[in-house]
Amino acid sequence: MPLHNDKLLVHSWAPAPPGWLERVSARFPGLDVRWEQTPMGKDDLVAADTLPAEVKDGVTMICVFPPPSPEMMKHVRFVQLASAGSDRWLQHPSYLNPDVQFCSASGCHAPQIAEWVFGSWLSFTHHFQAYTEQQKAQDWRMRVDLPVKDGLGRRMGILGYGAIGRQCARLASAFGLEVYAFTNSPRLTPESRKHDGFTISGTGDPDGIIPAKWFSGGQVNEFLAQDLDVLVISTPLTSSTRGLIGAEQFKLMSKSKTFVSNIGRGPIIDTAALVEALETGLICGAALDVQDPEPLPAGHPLWTAPNVFISPHMSWSSTSITPRLAELLYQNLERLDKGEPLLNLIKKT
Amino acid sequence: MPLHNDKLLVHSWAPAPPGWLERVSARFPGLDVRWEQTPMGKDDLVAADTLPAEVKDGVTMICVFPPPSPEMMKHVRFVQLASAGSDRWLQHPSYLNPDVQFCSASGCHAPQIAEWVFGSWLSFTHHFQAYTEQQKAQDWRMRVDLPVKDGLGRRMGILGYGAIGRQCARLASAFGLEVYAFTNSPRLTPESRKHDGFTISGTGDPDGIIPAKWFSGGQVNEFLAQDLDVLVISTPLTSSTRGLIGAEQFKLMSKSKTFVSNIGRGPIIDTAALVEALETGLICGAALDVQDPEPLPAGHPLWTAPNVFISPHMSWSSTSITPRLAELLYQNLERLDKGEPLLNLIKKT
Repeated sequence: MPLHNDKLLVHSWAPAPPGWLERVSARFPGLDVRWEQTPMGKDDLVAADTLPAEVKDGVTMICVFPPPSPEMMKHVRFVQLASAGSDRWLQHPSYLNPDVQFCSASGCHAPQIAEWVFGSWLSFTHHFQAYTEQQKAQDWRMRVDLPVKDGLGRRMGILGYGAIGRQCARLASAFGLEVYAFTNSPRLTPESRKHDGFTISGTGDPDGIIPAKWFSGGQVNEFLAQDLDVLVISTPLTSSTRGLIGAEQFKLMSKSKTFVSNIGRGPIIDTAALVEALETGLICGAALDVQDPEPLPAGHPLWTAPNVFISPHMSWSSTSITPRLAELLYQNLERLDKGEPLLNLIKKT
Repeated sequence: MPLHNDKLLVHSWAPAPPGWLERVSARFPGLDVRWEQTPMGKDDLVAADTLPAEVKDGVTMICVFPPPSPEMMKHVRFVQLASAGSDRWLQHPSYLNPDVQFCSASGCHAPQIAEWVFGSWLSFTHHFQAYTEQQKAQDWRMRVDLPVKDGLGRRMGILGYGAIGRQCARLASAFGLEVYAFTNSPRLTPESRKHDGFTISGTGDPDGIIPAKWFSGGQVNEFLAQDLDVLVISTPLTSSTRGLIGAEQFKLMSKSKTFVSNIGRGPIIDTAALVEALETGLICGAALDVQDPEPLPAGHPLWTAPNVFISPHMSWSSTSITPRLAELLYQNLERLDKGEPLLNLIKKT
């Protein structure tokens, strides 16, 4: 349906990229565009409901992070999420309405999140924290007591092979790690292994040719038993992934003492089992950009579990995130205008 | 010259890889092999002179890290260094003797040192130190005040394009950085851009096809003025590289506030100029596995310069270093036995 009489609200903590508003106005003269900037809160982004009534009224298209109230969404026909995951929307009336098209921001976060995965893993394997402590003590002392297992010839399992997982695979391959992929549905043909979401040119594994082995569906235990040196969790949070990694799974990882990196969602891991796996050494360590619960309260045992690195759900952060998201939104406006299939359209089930 | 009546001494802080001694004895029955293990000292590896006389006597081939005394080397015809650099040997009588063949360990360190370069750079750009402090305080707080510049579309300059530089280039390319290379001699033809040293299969840039631009010799200032986001120093320490990066060069880097990573040798950088560049913000930060002097004494201003990460010359460390070095040594024994050109033969000038 061509964009006429549509009102697009973009609600972000960042300003519009230079020239973007002009480009959109020139291309879609019938579209009323409002880019509203609100500073981020301490623990979360702020919902669009806080905006003045005149900004919210009559909005038919919206690009947001936290879900606004159903009331505010009642005329909305298109939602461009600013997140890769849609788990916060699952019970939202607009999401449940089949007439409202939702697109994720998958692909916009892949470069920086894959960097976070490798940076935090390398910080662990190369003992940067110990050297930072030595630096503070001004103590120059060679530490052969801190062995480094470099990545060449090791194995990375990637649980969830979307844009982020595929960029992790690209990096893993350059570092000399073998990649095993796990996907929700079986990917038995070359065609089915292709990525159908938004991919930034020169990133990821668009054709799905990097993994040496593929696992799917009920094979999660078989996948985790493959002597993985690193496990990257980059799958959406759904009813089938909630608690997917628990005590039984950590036991499977104990043979190779897998390093676990979670940049999906906290509840994919059973937190109590994770704390125990770290404390008893079933796994060698973990890097967690997401936790369960969030915000992680002071006093929670996860904070002080051994060999864990915790960051407050910030791996998506990049000075390039807003330009990338704005480009995706522009491409989807084009597709809406021409009646073409949308990028990253979420199949609501 | 076939290996007969030769005595090979390997002096290492690590044991021989399983099966290696048997493999060498089976292949070269005339060779007397001694693998001697000495624990590493606090600030350095220990020289082979400390070994008992019966181990040192009559040695004709040697694989060592610190240079032994000339006295101990007088019958030695072949030296396999355990280091990529030969700067500690430049004044040694054996090194000055044209009849003694020296081979470097170039290539054995490339995977782990390139990991150190990217790990320390990502730790800096992704603010892991700030999040580690938050973790210690059990403070879960989103930090949009800590902007992350991810690597996609940025530029890495690599000063010295040997095995380590080439593995950095391979990784840079996967992260989406453009690579500019600087070499001592001009590399104007595809043939001249190939790597002629020992390269572990699946690593590096053996054909020299990754760099978008090449600089050489007197062009160091032109190279540094190319808006480099990251500068990797991976060139040997020679009379022409000593003090190569000083106040004038930091000024050239100030336009793009280059991040400087030194895994070459400390004296390639003028330390006083580096401290000033960090303190005045000419560069955004630095990661230094090597310093001038080493060991860096307590109280030295480099320890507390802003945005610097210092490690005690440990980026070479890997549980795979000894197997890689032993494989290179084996291949060079083969070549010596057959009279073929040696791998990593140092052209002594």
